[in-house]
Formats: sequence, structure tokens, C-alpha cells
Amino acid sequence: MCLLWCSCCALLCWASLRGRRPKQSRASCPATQPSMLNVHLVPHTHDDVGWLKTVDQYYYGDRNDIQHAGVQYILDSVLEQLLADPTRRFIYVETAFFFRWWRQQDSATRKAVTMLVNEGRLEFVNGGWCMSDEATTHYSAVIDQMTLGLRFLNDTFGACGRPRVAWHIDPFGHAREHASMFAQMGYDGFFFGRLDYQDKARRIRDKDMEMVWRASESLTPPTADLFTGVLPNGYNPPAGFCWDQSCNDPPIRDDPNLEDYNVDNVVKRFIEIANDQAKMYRTNHIIMTMGSDFQYENANLWYKNMDKLIRYVNAKQSQGSKVNVLYSTPSCYLQGLHQANLTWSVKMDDFFPYADGPHDFWTGYFTSRPALKRYERLSNSLLQVCNQLEVLGGPNSRKGPYGEGDSDTLQEAMSVAQHHDAVSGTEKQHVANDYAKRLARGWAHCETLVSNALATLSSWEAPREYCLSLNISVCPATENSYKFFLTVYNPLSRMVSWPVRLPVNGSDYMVLQPHGQVLDSQVSLIMAASSIMVSHCYAIKRSVRIFVSSLLKGTQEVGFQPGLIQPFFFVPQFIRVTFDPDTGLMNSLTNLETKQKIQLIPWVSQVVRLYWGSRELELEWTVGPIPVEDSLGKEVITRLDTNINSSGYFYTDSNGREMLERRKDFRPTWDLKQSEPVAGNYYPINSRIYIKDKVNQLTAVTDRSQGASSLQDGSLEIMLHRRLLYDDVRGVGEPLSEPGDDNKGLVVRGRLLLALTPPKDAADIHRPLAEALVLEPLLAFQTGELHPNTILEVSGRRKEQFSGLQASLPPAVHLLTLSQWDQESVLLRLEHQFQVTESPTNSQPVTVNLKVRNGGQHNFCTCIKNSCCNLMHCTANGWDTGACVCVSGEQCPPRRLGDTSPWEITLKPMEIQTFLLRVRQR
Amino acid sequence: MCLLWCSCCALLCWASLRGRRPKQSRASCPATQPSMLNVHLVPHTHDDVGWLKTVDQYYYGDRNDIQHAGVQYILDSVLEQLLADPTRRFIYVETAFFFRWWRQQDSATRKAVTMLVNEGRLEFVNGGWCMSDEATTHYSAVIDQMTLGLRFLNDTFGACGRPRVAWHIDPFGHAREHASMFAQMGYDGFFFGRLDYQDKARRIRDKDMEMVWRASESLTPPTADLFTGVLPNGYNPPAGFCWDQSCNDPPIRDDPNLEDYNVDNVVKRFIEIANDQAKMYRTNHIIMTMGSDFQYENANLWYKNMDKLIRYVNAKQSQGSKVNVLYSTPSCYLQGLHQANLTWSVKMDDFFPYADGPHDFWTGYFTSRPALKRYERLSNSLLQVCNQLEVLGGPNSRKGPYGEGDSDTLQEAMSVAQHHDAVSGTEKQHVANDYAKRLARGWAHCETLVSNALATLSSWEAPREYCLSLNISVCPATENSYKFFLTVYNPLSRMVSWPVRLPVNGSDYMVLQPHGQVLDSQVSLIMAASSIMVSHCYAIKRSVRIFVSSLLKGTQEVGFQPGLIQPFFFVPQFIRVTFDPDTGLMNSLTNLETKQKIQLIPWVSQVVRLYWGSRELELEWTVGPIPVEDSLGKEVITRLDTNINSSGYFYTDSNGREMLERRKDFRPTWDLKQSEPVAGNYYPINSRIYIKDKVNQLTAVTDRSQGASSLQDGSLEIMLHRRLLYDDVRGVGEPLSEPGDDNKGLVVRGRLLLALTPPKDAADIHRPLAEALVLEPLLAFQTGELHPNTILEVSGRRKEQFSGLQASLPPAVHLLTLSQWDQESVLLRLEHQFQVTESPTNSQPVTVNLKVRNGGQHNFCTCIKNSCCNLMHCTANGWDTGACVCVSGEQCPPRRLGDTSPWEITLKPMEIQTFLLRVRQR
Repeated sequence: MCLLWCSCCALLCWASLRGRRPKQSRASCPATQPSMLNVHLVPHTHDDVGWLKTVDQYYYGDRNDIQHAGVQYILDSVLEQLLADPTRRFIYVETAFFFRWWRQQDSATRKAVTMLVNEGRLEFVNGGWCMSDEATTHYSAVIDQMTLGLRFLNDTFGACGRPRVAWHIDPFGHAREHASMFAQMGYDGFFFGRLDYQDKARRIRDKDMEMVWRASESLTPPTADLFTGVLPNGYNPPAGFCWDQSCNDPPIRDDPNLEDYNVDNVVKRFIEIANDQAKMYRTNHIIMTMGSDFQYENANLWYKNMDKLIRYVNAKQSQGSKVNVLYSTPSCYLQGLHQANLTWSVKMDDFFPYADGPHDFWTGYFTSRPALKRYERLSNSLLQVCNQLEVLGGPNSRKGPYGEGDSDTLQEAMSVAQHHDAVSGTEKQHVANDYAKRLARGWAHCETLVSNALATLSSWEAPREYCLSLNISVCPATENSYKFFLTVYNPLSRMVSWPVRLPVNGSDYMVLQPHGQVLDSQVSLIMAASSIMVSHCYAIKRSVRIFVSSLLKGTQEVGFQPGLIQPFFFVPQFIRVTFDPDTGLMNSLTNLETKQKIQLIPWVSQVVRLYWGSRELELEWTVGPIPVEDSLGKEVITRLDTNINSSGYFYTDSNGREMLERRKDFRPTWDLKQSEPVAGNYYPINSRIYIKDKVNQLTAVTDRSQGASSLQDGSLEIMLHRRLLYDDVRGVGEPLSEPGDDNKGLVVRGRLLLALTPPKDAADIHRPLAEALVLEPLLAFQTGELHPNTILEVSGRRKEQFSGLQASLPPAVHLLTLSQWDQESVLLRLEHQFQVTESPTNSQPVTVNLKVRNGGQHNFCTCIKNSCCNLMHCTANGWDTGACVCVSGEQCPPRRLGDTSPWEITLKPMEIQTFLLRVRQR
Repeated sequence: MCLLWCSCCALLCWASLRGRRPKQSRASCPATQPSMLNVHLVPHTHDDVGWLKTVDQYYYGDRNDIQHAGVQYILDSVLEQLLADPTRRFIYVETAFFFRWWRQQDSATRKAVTMLVNEGRLEFVNGGWCMSDEATTHYSAVIDQMTLGLRFLNDTFGACGRPRVAWHIDPFGHAREHASMFAQMGYDGFFFGRLDYQDKARRIRDKDMEMVWRASESLTPPTADLFTGVLPNGYNPPAGFCWDQSCNDPPIRDDPNLEDYNVDNVVKRFIEIANDQAKMYRTNHIIMTMGSDFQYENANLWYKNMDKLIRYVNAKQSQGSKVNVLYSTPSCYLQGLHQANLTWSVKMDDFFPYADGPHDFWTGYFTSRPALKRYERLSNSLLQVCNQLEVLGGPNSRKGPYGEGDSDTLQEAMSVAQHHDAVSGTEKQHVANDYAKRLARGWAHCETLVSNALATLSSWEAPREYCLSLNISVCPATENSYKFFLTVYNPLSRMVSWPVRLPVNGSDYMVLQPHGQVLDSQVSLIMAASSIMVSHCYAIKRSVRIFVSSLLKGTQEVGFQPGLIQPFFFVPQFIRVTFDPDTGLMNSLTNLETKQKIQLIPWVSQVVRLYWGSRELELEWTVGPIPVEDSLGKEVITRLDTNINSSGYFYTDSNGREMLERRKDFRPTWDLKQSEPVAGNYYPINSRIYIKDKVNQLTAVTDRSQGASSLQDGSLEIMLHRRLLYDDVRGVGEPLSEPGDDNKGLVVRGRLLLALTPPKDAADIHRPLAEALVLEPLLAFQTGELHPNTILEVSGRRKEQFSGLQASLPPAVHLLTLSQWDQESVLLRLEHQFQVTESPTNSQPVTVNLKVRNGGQHNFCTCIKNSCCNLMHCTANGWDTGACVCVSGEQCPPRRLGDTSPWEITLKPMEIQTFLLRVRQR
């Protein structure tokens, strides 16, 4: 576990180029010429983890009729070409593919690859399972997918396999939170290809293509500072220099005996291009991305011609040319930049929205495929539950009475789903179906694991069922049984109040709590779930009216009976809701201070719910099938018009974490010429959006990633669903018109939670609200071997309640990750979930004591029987484990953090800390 | 120079599978299973030497927008894949490409390739410069192009590089003469892919896909016997098993962890296909061609999947499967067939015409691009002249007063032009232009060589010019000079009478013969050229009327003045010609025994000439631009309707050599269902066609390859030109509509020579006539330093006449080749140019004495000053040189031929004998 040093790729410890220096230069980088323009050719392939084809089709090269692409052959071919010439280099990005390929190689091939990695000839960049989307992903899933990829590289290659550069060349706009995460993961720099065309023009003009991105307002610089570079040609080679089999550029024809000898022309053109590019950048180093989508399947074409290019261009140096071309990598290019010892401009905002032309804003995809976006978010919740129960249930969870289960399948499916053509919705329909299929398979594996874990924790092995269609009120276990057990598992680190709505057959049910107490609410199955707890509830048919059962029949019914619930469901402090007396559908929502109105058409409906004890209003919207008989595609929004004096400003989250200020028709870093008043003002939201003035803040918390904006003062709109009739001519070759199950068009249902608060209290409401919406309780049903007359006896024979925590963590602390790392370790991530200024009470450093102690608080180890725990501090990508130290145990040196008590972990606002708990069987 | 034996590829000496046995089996062939069905997978690429792209574009992978294909990468990639696994095999065919690639490789690569060749893992098949067309090529050019390719392989790899199998998988029908040549070159077998669909169906039904082709009626069997096999799938893999990057068949997905594991399905389908194919063939060996056009650019795709196929299919043997799959080559497959020890059926006719469907006859291309076809034929003539003068002129010819010249450039251009998408006319227009450009470049190199040689031979270095547009009466040297010298070089081995028509400026010229005698003809520049002679003529303006000068103005004029020439131009023994008195155009040609009439339209004209002393009638046709304003493509024929009682039979040459009997609506080997009464009766002619009855034979000798038929008894038609408005959907993607220089449509001019004779005398006329039309005299002009008053003095100071032969060879003997082989040897081919039964006088064995002796006849060495000659007998492909012996000289053992006198060479009808003359400077 000690840090591995190798001569070739000594670890750099600088997070950005400002202020800090590398401990050691990369000895493996090729020599450059200080007095010349050094052109770093970076051979690379961009391998989408699904887009026009599924990830497996891409891997094997299946369905080449759709797109010619086969990643297995790319890696085969690059390996051969790298071995053929030690000066050649290649970078590889997507571990999802590399992992598959590696698994199929023999030991000789693995040895050769390891040599190339150790010598820096094959360099991993980015290194996550995929190149995640930045607009529509949630930070927790991004961290998980990066962990999966980086851990594989670390386990396989050690320090030399560690990516030093983040590489997001294709995502359609760039989130500040991604940069923040990359900085915290220890990347030295970040390169991307796509940014607004006006922004790029300005940066070219001002030689501002490279900068330092200060990616957090909360974290103390340079914690979230990241050197960031805009690549000159997207991620493509300069025009005329694409030598892949997929390109038609002329090869270098250097045999004077054959026709069309073109070496002189090629050299001349290249030198011109290099000199032109140098005018946009500040140092005597420039980078050229030599590759593109799924290129290098036949790497010989590329390398053979680049070999010639390098030879012939550099040969001109003897005639006075000052252009020096070399095979390089992003990290070696970065080293060249660093040696220039410049001070770079600082970027504070983000790179959304992205437009590649005046009428080409890539903002619709923030909402595209809303059902997939929701399924992905739900899957993240299940994965966290699955991970936690794998830890809590011990080895039995993976192999137990329900068979073999695992969290890996869902973890891989989720990691694939983070790809920038997955949850983004920019893939072909059949590929979207494949992502969903993978998630579903992951669910099945996790359900087995969860059942095993619950059986272990409860000592009760009766069959368990999971109702995946509760959003449309379908659950055979509850609909077909007049009595059933319900287990609720809450993955949060504190108590939540969570409404459980179940479709049942009839109207009278009795709900019993653990240990047999009758639940005091008689009109709903709303149950409190305590922190990391397992809770068994038993429902039996009785004279209780279950208000949610009517949801089963679809959108024509409202979710409650107004006569019963109106007295306590309406809290007229802020909001008044009125309903159509004939249909029960909401026809107005009134803020008592302002006015708002939503016009409904037949294929759009909305259910409004207010829960006792909650300050938020729930809007359950149902949209679809979007009618297109009029030959018009449509984008459906929900809009809240208020009198909040928002002055053109609104606020959106970045990947579900820190908030960014937005302003209509404005960009912080250039003088915007607004050409699209709607699309040009849309921003991605992953968890929330708000508008505010000095008195009021209206926050909408969402259940999935969406696009949103504020196009008028006081107005807030969110796009819910969209259906289009024309392809957008960006490659996918299909209009976005999701067919749904019946091919008539997809129907989508979702929830918005609205909170109207004073600005200073807003975060105290929306932070835990969003946290609870991201990590939902798991519901497991049991219907077998239950007899009404044994209920109370049953409850006495089994363990009916369980908590993994001895007490709740403070409100500011989010339990981000608790998962099994290997046989003897558990990965723990704790996060401070408040920004530095947003809450007077919660935006403070908070200390958690992790010590294993009888009766102590907040420890994570009592849950694991017959084991002891060691604690280590690690970076998120897992690489610094070697540098981490244990806090107890003879074998390990003492923890190096400055704290006086090694047991106490202090989290500052927006800080994430990662730990490995060492678990040993006693 | 002794025969090289290597363990891997011991030479087989069996020309066919009938009667003879290999001296030794190929130790390098993979093991097969005697009790199983052995499936020989033959990985191959089919690399057209030009088609949709030019040969250089194909080599480098340029213009991939037209077609993705880059041969340099194919060879790179296959080499890597062969080196990766010793069981893998590959065959390579087109030496034009291999030669280019080899020239660019370093010594390590060459060594690796040599190892693969020596071990039989890389096997050359066919091995000519290209895979020649069979319908439109002349045998002499085919022999030359085969020699160029095979010689390179022999020089580079020795015996192990010798192709044992002829491989014409793509040509559109198959000529018997090609099979005859292949047999005589020592090939063990011949495989092809295309034959008439009815023929193939019959052969499948009768298990007659493999046979022995007896390819000559004249040569004593088995001299021209060749084992011939029809490949099962053209040259493609079985459906569903194409794993090239250009294919979309699903790869073998053998990772059970990924989606769509398909190994079981693939194995099942393959075994079914193999068993089905085995039903069409006679042994327990079948062949599968695993490749196609320009495949294997990324050979890994193929081999990776074939490796899996072999592994998984053969794994089924342990469960009782009787299918054994292996990497193999055509020669190893042939060995498997041979070991079956069967007697095969005998094929006597040829495989023309080729149809791939009832209305898809590939017969139009016999005439396509008539200008290119003529240019190719003329270039062959120049090449022979160039070769001969390179020998006669000695080293000075390659580097002399006119600069550096060579015959190699034209030889390579001619070899490229033999390709089945070159002279065939089936290529794209820009590629046809490229072939012509290559020939033109070859002409320029040859002209320099010829000028040097003529300067050496004549001791006269004044500038020489060549008039390449005499067919349209353009020649600046004669048009702009009132006096000029003309040198005529006759490449035949006997005297010919050859009309020379020159455009001049005026009407009165005096023509002087060598040594100053005035040429007795005053109305033309018709000069006799003696056998291999150099003849200088001097023309000066005088009161001589030059009848040909009027041709300069185009098709509206006839080539002579009727008033002057009628008395001796009309020889009314057989033919009468009448002219329109207003236009001078011919309006009828009358056979005095029969009647014939040709109807002319404005864009078609014909000039008719009769020469004093000649029995043949010359028809000079001019066709074009073919009008297409009516949106109809057109094919223009010339037809001769006679009363010859031809009974449906007609006779066409095969590659300009032996004649084949044709019969309307009939095929010798199956019961034809005729679906196309015109196209289905067309056959290629390269030199002649005739119809006959017991009394008369009408023979048409052509100046290029064309399509021809006899659709009515007594009728004979030849297609001259064609212009089409639709692509034929066979890949070229262009309609055949040649633009000509002015984009209005190509105008083409050509000649037919007609002879009407008794059948028994016909060959005595048409054989030498065709010989003279194939090898035309070279005309070289000099205009400088000439003064009228020095004519006679000039002629006295220079050598004005020269002959390479001391006397003419017998009429039956054609000097096929005389060319420089290397610094000390000269290649000589002598041919008996009569078939066994066609002439009472000439169809007899003829003896030529090659001995170097003062005053002797027919020796080829007196021309080479200060040298001695050794004579060796060699096969055409150059490989048996080691087994040949010299006829004189101390170092060499005596010649092994049975002749009592080693100096005397006896040629039997249709026999070609090849010799190397050893030339040593004294």
C-alpha cells in the first residue's frame, strides 16, 4: 500500500499551474526545443460509451451498418503500433472499454501494455468509466463512476496508470462542479473541446484559451483550482490532417516514383497551420488532437502518416524552420505550459449554455428523455442503498438465501449511464433502451443482494418483492394481497419523513409499526424512517381509506379526496390551490402574495400534494404522449410566475451541488450577442433552481435533471418533456420522438417540490429536501407465510428494526458513500452539503467523531459484527491510499492530518472527505 | 542459378491433376483430417490495379471519399497479423502493389516477409503485375505483364516465392488462351469466381465445379492442360462471415459477460454452410475465400474472428462434429484435391460470354472505351520496338545524346493497363485517363530510348520527333517543314509493306529512299520496311501529290482523290466500292459474289482504302460524338452481310491467338436458355473474327479488342463504340459516357482489315496481317540541320539502313519478344503463330537455327557488337532458368533438349519458346 514511484511517470502534486509547482517533472515526456514552436501531436480516440450503437456493439464492432466502430480492434491496433516504435504515444480515456479489453488479453499482452504504461507511451487520461455528461449528471454518480474507472487503473497499473489530466473533449458545455471534482481528485489540468462560439472567438482574440478555473466559491483556493485548456480544433485534427480509416484526407505520398508526390505541400500546409494556431496561445507549445470518434481502429494509417509528418516537418529545421513536431500527451503538453511560468486568467463561472452557432444552442438535451433521466436518478438511489446494505449485511448479502447478488452490475450500469450520450438523452432510441436495460439488470442483482442483506439483518428469509412501478401505482404485492409486510430502508444519515403511497385492493387497511404498534395516521402509509434503519411495517386490510390507491387508474384521478384532506393539506400561509370540482384536477395554484396560473391541455396533468409537517408543495406532473399530429414538435414547460423582484437573476445548481448565479441575456466573461431569447437562456438543473429578492425565495427542487430558466422577472420555468420531428443534424440521425410502450409517444411523470421561504432560510430547507429526493427509502414487500393471527407473534421472533448509525449525523453532513471496497475495507465519503454563505446555522465547519467507542456518536463500525475498523483518509480517486495512514493499529503510522484528535473529522462547507475503513474479521 | 529447394515449398511439377503427380508435397501445408470435411479458409484481398481510383490512389489510400482502399496499409496489417500467429496464412496476388510496398520496407521488414514466404505463411498466387482482363487483352501483353510480376517475385524470394496457382477471381469471363498460357507457365491450377449463372447452376447440380481445362487444340496434351476450379462464393466469404472493416456482419461475441453472446449461433450456421457447400464438390476438401475487394486493411478484424471461428468450430469435434476448419491457401487446397486421386472432367471451350442473370450479360465491355483499347494496343507495339532497340542500341540507348530513356516505364504502364478494369474499359473515367497518362509517360521514356538507339545505330544525333497523332493526320514535323527525314523501324522479323500517310503542307513532294534513290511511288509515302531494319527516308517539297494530306481536315473528306487513285486502288477481284459523288463518302461496299450495305448517319463515317499489292480492304471508321440528346444510350456496330452459308457458326480469336468456334444461341457445355438474343451472342475479339462456308471465308482483322458476333447466317458484326446514360449497377457508379476533349462526347477512329479468301488459304493471309497490325513500324522524324543542297552529301555520311536480322524468319515464326533482361542477358521469345490445322503450308513444325555463324540465318546476336551469346531455354515466367543449360561456352553444361543440334530450335504449331541470350562484353 505504499506509494509506488516509477522513473517514468513520477506523480505530480500540483492541482493547477497557478502558485504551485510539480514536485518532479515527468521524466517520460519527449524532449522539446526551447527556441522553437513545439507542436504536441496527441494521438487519441474518442470512444463513446454508447451513442449510435450500444456500448457492447461499440466494443465488439457489431452493427457496423449503423456506424463503423469497434473498440476491441482499436486497442489491439494501437498496442501493435506503439510496440513498433518507442517514440509513438497514445492516450486512452474510457475505462469502461479498456476494462473489457484487458479482461480478454493474455499475460504476454498485459505485460506489454504494462510496459507501455510504465514508459509513458500509453497514457491514461480522465480514466473514469466513461466521459461523463456535465449538464445532466448528479455529482454523486459522477464520483462513483470516476472511482470505478480510476480504481481499476490503480489496481492494474499502480501509480503509472494514474491519469494526471481530465479530458472532456466532447461534452456539450462544462459544469463548474465537474472542474471542482477534478481538482479535488488531484488532476493537474483539464482540457475540453466544446464551448460557446462567441466565447471561443473572444478567447482566441485575447489569447485566453488557457486559464485557471476556480471551481468553488466555498472551498479554499487552490482546493478547487484547475488549469483548464480549450483545445484548438474541438478534438479533431487540423483540417486536412486526418489520416484515420474513417477520414478521406490525402495520405502523405512520399514516393517520388508514384503520382502525386505531396510531401512539400503537406509540410507547407502544416507549418502554416501550426504558426496560425500559435497565435491563439501564449507559449511556444501548442497541442493538436490527432484523432476523433472511434478512430485508430487501424492505427497504422495514423502513425504511418504522422511518422512521415514529423520526419519531413522537422527536416525543415536544418533550413531554418522553427517548428518542432513531436508525439506527446496532454500531461507532457501541460508540463511544457508549466515550464513557461506564466500567470493565467481565472475563470469563476461555468461553460453553459453551449452554442455552436447563433441558432444552435445545445440546451434542449437538458430535458431530453426525461424518463431515462429519472430512471438514472432512481438507480443512483438504489445503488447507494445496495452499497450500504452490502456493507451492513456482510458477505451474506452477496451470497445468501435469495441467491447471488451484487452491487457491481448496477454500479457498472450507472457508470455507463453517466456517459455524455446516455443520461444526456442524446443517443439513439435503441441505445437509450439499452441503458435502461442495463440499469434494470443492475436492479435485479441489487435486489437479490438487498434481500440477502435484509434477511441477515432481520433473521427472516421469507420472499421479498420490490415494486418498481409505484410511480404509476402498480405493485402486485400490495394490490393482490390483503395483508403484507413492508420494510423501509432509509439510506440517509438522519431521520426523514417520507410519504409511502401504495396501491391496494380496497379501502380499509390497518398499518402496524415495528413491534406491533398501530401507526397513528389512518389515511396514508406515511411512515417515518430513521437514519440507516430497517423498518418492518405490517399492513392488513381494515377500515382505513388509502387515499393513494386511486392513482392506479391514471391521470384522470387526483391523488386524494379533497373532503378529507383539505383541512390539514392547505397551509394558506403562502400557497392556495384550487381544483376543478368536476375533474378534481388542479386549475390554479396561488401564491398568496403573488399570482400564478398554469394552463393545462388534455395530455398534461398535474397533481398537487401538501404533506402535514412539510413546508414544501409537491407538484406531480404527467406529460404525454405529446401530440404531433399537427406536424410540430413540442417542448413542454411548467412555469411559475411570481412577483419576486428577481431582476433578471436566477440560480441553478451545478451537478446537484453548488449553486451558480445566472442572469438573463448575459454571460459573465464576454459581451453576449443574444440570438436565441429562449434557448439561449436555458441552463441545466440537476436538483434545483431558485429566484429570489430580499424578502422571498422560491425554490423548485426536481427529481431528475432538467432544463430551466427565468425568462421574465419573477418567473421560473422548467422544461418537463419534449418531442421533436426533425433530427438536429449533430450525428444521431433520429428525431427525438420517444415511442413509449405503445408507440404512441412516451408518457412521463415526475415531481417538483416547491419551497417559498425567506432567502436566509432557504438552504436549510432545500438542501435536506434535495438530499432526501436523491436518496429515497427502499421499500421491500413480503407477502408469503403471513397469517393475520400470527402478526404479533411474528414480530416478537424477528429483528424488526435496525440502524447502521447510533444517531443522526448533523444536518450539514451528508453520507455520500458507504460501500464495500474489498474484502477487508469499506469506502466512506462524508460531505458537507452546504455552501459557505447560504445558511447562518449550517454553513459552518462541522466535526464528526468517527471513533469506535461504546456509546459514541456517528461511528460507522458498530454495524459490522466481529470486526475492527481502521480509518484512512483518501482522495476520491483512490490513488492516495498509499499516502494515507491509519488512525489505529500497530501496523500503521499515525494519521498525518493536523487534527489533534485523529478521530475527529472536520468538514468545511462543500468539502468531501473520503475514508477507507479497514475491516478485519476477528 | 541452380534450382533452389526449400523445405517449405518444394516445387510441384504437375501442370494438372490428371495424369501427373507432384514430385513432392508441400511440406508447409497445414494438416488436414482424412475422415472429416476439411474447410480451407483462404484469407485474401482482391486489390484492383485501378478501378474506381487510380492505382496510386489505391496504393496510398488516397481519395477514400470515392472508395475506402489503401493497399500500403493492407500489406502492413497482414504482415503484423501473420507474424502474430504461425497458423495464420495469407495469399497475395497483385505484384504491381507488392512491388511498390516492398520497395519502401526496411531490411528487418523484408527479412520478416521473406521468412513468412519461406514458411508458406504468405503465399503468392497468380503473381503477375496485375490480374489481367481475359476478354480484351492481347496475349503478348499478358505474357509481358506476367513476366514483370513473376520475375520480381523470383528475384526477390527465389523458389519459395513462386506462385503455383493462377487466381483470376474477378475477371468477367475466362479466355481459353489465358488457361493455355497459365499451363505453359507451369501453374498447377487455376481458380476463378465468375462464370455464367446457368453454367454454374449446372455445375453445382452435377458436382462439376472442378475440372481440367484443355486449353489448346494445337499443343500436345498435357502441355496446355490446367486444373481449374470454380470458387463457391465468387471470391467472397459465405454470407454472414465477412469480418472485414468494410463489412457489417456481426463479429463473434464470445464474452458471456457482454450482451449478445453469439458463439453457438455462429458455429451452427458455419457448419450448415460448410455441409451445404460440400454437396457441390467431390472431395472432403472445400475452399472458402475469406476476403474481398481491398479487404484486410485492418487484418486484425478478420484474423481475430477467424481464430475464434476455427477454435469454436473445431471444438465441436469432441462432440462428434466432422467439420475441420483450417487456415489454408489455394495451393494447399489443391494438394488436398490431388490426394483424392480423382479423374476430372475435361473442358475444351472457354467461359465467354459471362452473364450473372438472364438480362445481365457482361459483353458490352468488350468494346467499352475503344480509344483506350487502341492506345493500349499501340503502346504494346511501341513497347516491343522500344525493347528491341534497347537491345540493338546497347547501353547507349538508356543514356545517350537525347538524355535518359528506359523501357521500364512503358512496361509498367502496359502491365498496369492489362488489369481487368483497365483495358477492359470498366473503370471510372478519371481512372481511364490515368491509365492513358501512364502510357503517355511510358511513351516519352521510350521515345528518348529509341532516339538514343537510333542515334547509335545511325551515328546521327540530330533531334528526332515522333508524331503520335497521325491517326488524325496531325504531325507538326511534316506539316511545318518543307523537308524532313523519316526513319521507319519495323519490329517484325520479316519484310512488310506498310503504308505511311503523312500530313504535309502542300501537294508536291519528292520522296527519296536510303542512299538517295527516289521512291518510285509518287502519290503516297508508302515505304517498304525490311525485317528489324532502320530506314531513313528524306522528303522534300516537289510536284508530288500526297493523297493522305486531306485527312487532316476530318471526317468530311475521304483519304484520297478518286480521280487519281481509282485505276489502281480498285482490285475488283472480290470487292467493289462506290462513293457518293457529292461528298466523296463511301455509300456502298460490294463483295462481287455477295452484297453488303452499310447505312451511315452524320456522326459515323468510314474511309475505304485498297493498297496496291494487298489482298485486304481497309475500312477506316470514325464514330462520335455519339448523340444522346434523345436520352438513349447507343452502341454502334459495323455489320457485313454476306451470302456465306455460315449456319450459325462464327469464329473468334482468344486473346489474339488461337481461334474458337462460336455458335449462335448455343453453349458447348450446357443447354442454353437464351434470354438475350444480341448481348447473349457477343464474344470478345482481340485480333479477328471470321465466318466461312466450304468456299469462302470472310475474315475481319481488328486494330484493337472489340465485341463481335454473327447474329444471322452470313452476317458478321463488330461493335465499334458505345455511349450509355445509366450506370450498370456493378459498382463503377458512372454511366459509360466518355466526354472526349471537348466534353461533347468522344470521337473514335479505327481500322478493320477485311480479307475474303478460300478457307484453306485464310490463315496464310490473316495470321501475318494480324501480326503486322499488332506490331507497327515506328516512325521518327528529323527536321533540323537539313538543307536542300546537302541531301546527297548527308546521306553519304551516315548509316542509313540497318537490320537486326540477317534475313527474314519463316512466315510461321513470330518474334514475340526481344528485350534486355539484365546487363548481360537478352530475353528472346519465338512463337509459332499458326494453329495445327489452319494452313497446309504453315501449320507445320518449323526449325530456326540460332547459331552464331558468319553468314548464317536467323541468328539474333550479330546485332550486338563486341559480345558473345549463350542460349538458354526458359519457361515464360522465368523460374526455370536454373534448370536451363547453355548451348555453348565452357561454363555451361550442354543443353538438355532432345535435339541433335543444340542450335536448332523447332517450333510446333502454337508453341512459344523462351530463351535467355547471355551477352558478354568482350
